[in-house]
Amino acid sequence: MAGVDDELAAWLRLLLSPGVGRDAARRLLAAFGSPQAVFVASTTARRAVVPPSLAEALAAPPESWQAQCDATAAWLAGDGTRRVVTLGDALYPPALLHTADPPLLLFVHGRAELLAARDALAIVGSRNPTAQGRDNARAFAAHFARAGWTVVSGLALGIDGAAHEGALEGGGDTVAVMGTGIDRVYPARHRELAHRIARDGALVSEFPLGTPPLAGHFPQRNRLIAGLARGTLVVEAALESGSLITARLAAEAGREVFAIPGSIHSPQSRGCHALIKQGAKLVETADDVLGEFGSARGAPAATPAPAPRDPVLDALGHDPATLDALAARTGWPAADLAARLLELELEGHVQRLPGGMYQRRERA
Amino acid sequence: MAGVDDELAAWLRLLLSPGVGRDAARRLLAAFGSPQAVFVASTTARRAVVPPSLAEALAAPPESWQAQCDATAAWLAGDGTRRVVTLGDALYPPALLHTADPPLLLFVHGRAELLAARDALAIVGSRNPTAQGRDNARAFAAHFARAGWTVVSGLALGIDGAAHEGALEGGGDTVAVMGTGIDRVYPARHRELAHRIARDGALVSEFPLGTPPLAGHFPQRNRLIAGLARGTLVVEAALESGSLITARLAAEAGREVFAIPGSIHSPQSRGCHALIKQGAKLVETADDVLGEFGSARGAPAATPAPAPRDPVLDALGHDPATLDALAARTGWPAADLAARLLELELEGHVQRLPGGMYQRRERA
Repeated sequence: MAGVDDELAAWLRLLLSPGVGRDAARRLLAAFGSPQAVFVASTTARRAVVPPSLAEALAAPPESWQAQCDATAAWLAGDGTRRVVTLGDALYPPALLHTADPPLLLFVHGRAELLAARDALAIVGSRNPTAQGRDNARAFAAHFARAGWTVVSGLALGIDGAAHEGALEGGGDTVAVMGTGIDRVYPARHRELAHRIARDGALVSEFPLGTPPLAGHFPQRNRLIAGLARGTLVVEAALESGSLITARLAAEAGREVFAIPGSIHSPQSRGCHALIKQGAKLVETADDVLGEFGSARGAPAATPAPAPRDPVLDALGHDPATLDALAARTGWPAADLAARLLELELEGHVQRLPGGMYQRRERA
Repeated sequence: MAGVDDELAAWLRLLLSPGVGRDAARRLLAAFGSPQAVFVASTTARRAVVPPSLAEALAAPPESWQAQCDATAAWLAGDGTRRVVTLGDALYPPALLHTADPPLLLFVHGRAELLAARDALAIVGSRNPTAQGRDNARAFAAHFARAGWTVVSGLALGIDGAAHEGALEGGGDTVAVMGTGIDRVYPARHRELAHRIARDGALVSEFPLGTPPLAGHFPQRNRLIAGLARGTLVVEAALESGSLITARLAAEAGREVFAIPGSIHSPQSRGCHALIKQGAKLVETADDVLGEFGSARGAPAATPAPAPRDPVLDALGHDPATLDALAARTGWPAADLAARLLELELEGHVQRLPGGMYQRRERA
């Protein structure tokens, strides 16, 4: 038990006891008042609360306990913004208390007070989004952050990462709920992002230190994402994806579910469309979401970053147009026009469509 | 009155009488039993049914009546598939009788029996759709037609035209409801399409012969599109467009409203999204629509036309990919790959996205 106090050591022992799930642990805590009291109690007393096999199992310290206590002490000593928040802690997020399966404890790195943010929204979606989906996640997150909302997501590649980045760029608060131990950043490509979140927002995990990425943990992680937020926005998601699990958990927890529509030919929009068919709210703008909570910010924050004023972009308008049509509208020679369109395409302002049409690409 | 029989002449006189709207006309018909009886009756008798000014106005034949009778006789003589179907006719569409404002009569060119089709669906949308929107209209219409449904639309440019064409290509039935006199094809670009519809489907108009395209007539036309169908599908529509009027009229007439979602950055999808927010059913496939009426056809007809087997298309899958990623997947030299991608783009199978990504373009 070296390095952590007796109380935290008892919480970790409860967390690690083999076969003792969160449900049994919460029953034990309710019966005995604290994890220390659970272990001081007799096996007979514990049998009144949990099945005999579990009551027995709790008598002997779990094998990994000592190492976890040491690792936790070392991790906590890393900097002053690391802590373990337990079910008994005043900092424990109230929003999670109102869910079906609150975790016993949370490892938190960064601004732990963000966990209690009342105005929090989850943004989740595909690990393999379209470029537009990624842009949308970033833009919606930045808008929420500017409006004072905390953006909760899962630190995954794709939509999750874009949401965290958007919130940070919006100068706002973001919480990343991890499916690994808080000392294991997954995916590795998000190491730098995780550092920024630990500094400006908060990283959170309910898993013991050193827990590797395991497929079974991600749905558990998703219930915390949904549980921490007043609503969950699915930006892009395939059918049968983890994002739909998060959305279902949000709905079950009585929270709002929002989904962004897309092309019926885009597999990354099928999950969103399925959610809308099931009753999720279709949203086109970040204010559509905030409006549900009576806190839309109106025009200023909703206004897209202005596209550069450009005679070709102006001529293009918002509908696809052919080179001929643009030549007629601008009066430019075709060669100049083609060169300018290529520049605009490379800058991401214009998209070339099949059939020689050009279309503006919007950045909200 | 030369050329048409007394009964039809009386219907045309009622249609043309200045100031006598459909509502007053229907009250007169209910009171007197036939248009001939309306005109035989005294002004005093008519005053019991309509305001005095209208009762007076009906005493004198309208100025344009003689010419309209002549024109109608000449039009009817054009071929054997032209007729005027009045409210008193057995061929009058039952579906329209159950709407708030059934027309007094319909000029019909083609297969008048299609007007009584129980299984009819309306497809409407923007006159200025995206290429994908047009493809979608055509594909949904072809699917409905193959499933034995009559496709009703408005002969307009864009989505309407694509819907009629899709139905004809599906070897099925289509009804075009016109906003002009049936002898005036609008837009002129759809003259050939109108001829095909008159031969294989039916053209319908409630307006007197020679009526030019007038803005005020198109919303009236839309109520017939909605009224003839069990449901209305909006494929693409801007906000505040005629398609939304059609959808509203369909909902008011107790019919189903369906909408296809799209990008939140596409102005042509905003109307569809607004409808879904208001309760229209989001649909991704034609079978989503037919399923609402218990008549989905299942996989065979819903299967997209197979894309050509191609190693580059196979490597592309359904997500955007960079040239580098495709080179790694196919093992092709970059120059060969770029050449093949250009071919696929020109053939419409691939779309180039900003940032050097490529994406498959689906044809349902």
